[in-house]
Amino acid sequence: MTDPRLAALAARLPDLRLLTDPADLEHYGRDWTRRWPPAPLAVALPGNLDEVQGIVRWANEHRVAVVPSGGRTGLSGGAVAAHGELVLSLERMNRALGFDPVDRTLRVQAGMPLQAVQEAARAHGLVYPVDFAARGSCSIGGNIATNAGGIRVIRYGNTREWIAGLTVVAGNGEVLELNRGLVKNSSGYDLRQLMIGSEGTLGVVVEALLKLAEPPPPSQVMLLALPDMDALMRVFALFRARLALQAFEFFTDAALRHVLAHGAQRALEGEHPYYVVAEFDAAGEAAQQAALEAFEEGVNRGWIADGAIAQSEAQAAALWRLREGITESLAPHRPYKNDVSVRIGAVPAFLHAMQALLAREYPQFEVVWFGHIGDGNLHINVLKPEALADADFIAQCEHVTRLLAATLREHGGSISAEHGIGLVKKPYLEGTRSAAEIALMRGVRQVFDPNGILNPGKLF
Amino acid sequence: MTDPRLAALAARLPDLRLLTDPADLEHYGRDWTRRWPPAPLAVALPGNLDEVQGIVRWANEHRVAVVPSGGRTGLSGGAVAAHGELVLSLERMNRALGFDPVDRTLRVQAGMPLQAVQEAARAHGLVYPVDFAARGSCSIGGNIATNAGGIRVIRYGNTREWIAGLTVVAGNGEVLELNRGLVKNSSGYDLRQLMIGSEGTLGVVVEALLKLAEPPPPSQVMLLALPDMDALMRVFALFRARLALQAFEFFTDAALRHVLAHGAQRALEGEHPYYVVAEFDAAGEAAQQAALEAFEEGVNRGWIADGAIAQSEAQAAALWRLREGITESLAPHRPYKNDVSVRIGAVPAFLHAMQALLAREYPQFEVVWFGHIGDGNLHINVLKPEALADADFIAQCEHVTRLLAATLREHGGSISAEHGIGLVKKPYLEGTRSAAEIALMRGVRQVFDPNGILNPGKLF
Repeated sequence: MTDPRLAALAARLPDLRLLTDPADLEHYGRDWTRRWPPAPLAVALPGNLDEVQGIVRWANEHRVAVVPSGGRTGLSGGAVAAHGELVLSLERMNRALGFDPVDRTLRVQAGMPLQAVQEAARAHGLVYPVDFAARGSCSIGGNIATNAGGIRVIRYGNTREWIAGLTVVAGNGEVLELNRGLVKNSSGYDLRQLMIGSEGTLGVVVEALLKLAEPPPPSQVMLLALPDMDALMRVFALFRARLALQAFEFFTDAALRHVLAHGAQRALEGEHPYYVVAEFDAAGEAAQQAALEAFEEGVNRGWIADGAIAQSEAQAAALWRLREGITESLAPHRPYKNDVSVRIGAVPAFLHAMQALLAREYPQFEVVWFGHIGDGNLHINVLKPEALADADFIAQCEHVTRLLAATLREHGGSISAEHGIGLVKKPYLEGTRSAAEIALMRGVRQVFDPNGILNPGKLF
Repeated sequence: MTDPRLAALAARLPDLRLLTDPADLEHYGRDWTRRWPPAPLAVALPGNLDEVQGIVRWANEHRVAVVPSGGRTGLSGGAVAAHGELVLSLERMNRALGFDPVDRTLRVQAGMPLQAVQEAARAHGLVYPVDFAARGSCSIGGNIATNAGGIRVIRYGNTREWIAGLTVVAGNGEVLELNRGLVKNSSGYDLRQLMIGSEGTLGVVVEALLKLAEPPPPSQVMLLALPDMDALMRVFALFRARLALQAFEFFTDAALRHVLAHGAQRALEGEHPYYVVAEFDAAGEAAQQAALEAFEEGVNRGWIADGAIAQSEAQAAALWRLREGITESLAPHRPYKNDVSVRIGAVPAFLHAMQALLAREYPQFEVVWFGHIGDGNLHINVLKPEALADADFIAQCEHVTRLLAATLREHGGSISAEHGIGLVKKPYLEGTRSAAEIALMRGVRQVFDPNGILNPGKLF
């Protein structure tokens, strides 16, 4: 530890765990993007709020860039440390700190994995309803930093809706206790909401007070095969009108091929271009009957080609695996990922424009898409041909993303629905946010982090 | 119109409706606080977004303070113009602009009254669920500016949850289209959320895209009489565990006396210190049975002294009037109002501390309190004795508010749950928000409104 800045940090915080081993720098310096070679200065693993504040104050004094770091499952490079930054990992701060049965809140440290949060909530007879496939690896602090969405947004909204309070070390080194669990608090700007989705550029989330919900009623899971793209939103409208949807997720035949090749079980015979996994409340016979009737109406109208309904929890899990296993099944192909959204009402027009664009621009690549169609959110994965060099592949994909960003702008959409901007989407931010908005965001960032030490180069 | 600044405004926007008649200045220069003598420079009634932008740009060029103005039903002076400001009233921009059945959103102009919004939603078979007694007079833009709460927060949350997009003219004169109806949009700071609750200090809300909800199931309304204060939160916990609550509102015997004297109908015999109006889902017999059982359990445990359940819509309205009529019944007494909140779990301890404080400090005044107890939100109304001069009365109340703010700080509460800070709560803001938070808020305000033309002197 010959770097004098690190020596100063160690002297200031003698109990702070600091890593400088090359394997640790590699491990903590990258996220799931794998695009930037990690090169942090060191990795700090604080154990408490005081240490986090000490690090941020030290960083301000020594003008060292800090990368806040959770589970590093991010897909836009928001937690990458490739330029001598200090990685501030919340990994050791991973505990639940207290449950309040009257408030129905759970206080957690930011490094707690989402799945552990969900389990802690269930232990109290309630649920933390934000959910997605990376639940075992991602941290709640990272979820907050990107306002994570996932597969239950249609029922429960994004992470933003579930934060009753935040303890934050702002970029200027001040500790902020934001909102403190109040249901009603009209006392000036809601800095809690400003912090959510700010990708570690305004402050480091150290603790969160999470709202919990009543467990949903018993549900059923259905797999639907659809004959064409236009059927997607028609079936969505039909099901939403008749059922209390908890999830409505779609994927293509290409996605299904990959997930089946990766070990998932086939649930329907025949070939169909589009599939939907729908989950909905099915507490009584009336709800189950309504589901069957909706299904039959979809079939009669020619919008549904085939379907299967899970008869057990194991079957429900098997149907869900067809959707949730996609990302993992694609990982060996080093996919280039887009994560885009439009208004729900704009989905049909956008789908057509997007499909035409992808078919025209990507004849050489396999493109797999899937997503949270009931939220207007599509994930587009372009698979890298083995023979193609990384840089060439990414360059070709970036060209198409530029066109996609223009299409999104025409349809009023967003270049990042739930992954965040980070490094990956930064070149396209101005397709989604106006110059006036970006100027205001820059000003806000300057207020919170006057020395620019938090995640510099990320977001904008 | 001899003021050269107004002449410049009229020349810039020849179609702009401008009022300078003394009666108009008086009418548009004050809100429901009635504490500050209105003294605006003039009143502008723009008819479209361009005119709003033109006014804000003119104000920046001529350094004229602008007070954004909705229904002026505010209770903290946020819309008061007492120092030569231009009142920018959205009153003429009061129309619904479009409904999207797939997105389930309603686009409205900011000057639309809340009740008209609710009616427009119902005309499309949906509901805009934020609701409170001022619905006929307040505007949706004002609701957004204070993140209005009201009587359905327990089920539906505050205004914040129902805003899918905002069209804003920022203090710097830029038009911002914030979020544009996207369900998922992780593309930098959520300036929409920052704008909500900012009391016209960051920008002027011109249009809003509102989320609408499915109509709630049929409900029942119950009036409960409670023997003591400790029973309040016990009955709340009991009812919340057994029923799907839509509202849980409490008031004291003093409040009941006023509302009965004001023409409401008595629903229960006998004298009781506390009352609750509860509304809950009652779609089938099971739900109605559950309500009766919860009631009986409360009686058996000694938490409920008496009760009545509405047997018709007219009876339900009569029970609601006992709660909703309170504010109007107190108005002739020129009440000094506190609007405070704590975490739900902190309500019992805070209620005891608050009651002791009020009994000790206000022996000379009648104090009436009521509120949204299931959200931790209490309204305290101190009635002015007729003989006492306004200034003396307010001075005595301010003294107690200072003590109340200290009690709130001890209990982690807020000096403003839903009314906003405005002018009235400004002296107490630092009991609720830390110096570090206020410094950040000042910085943010400076970014949005560098010349300080929007609602100067309000909030901080």
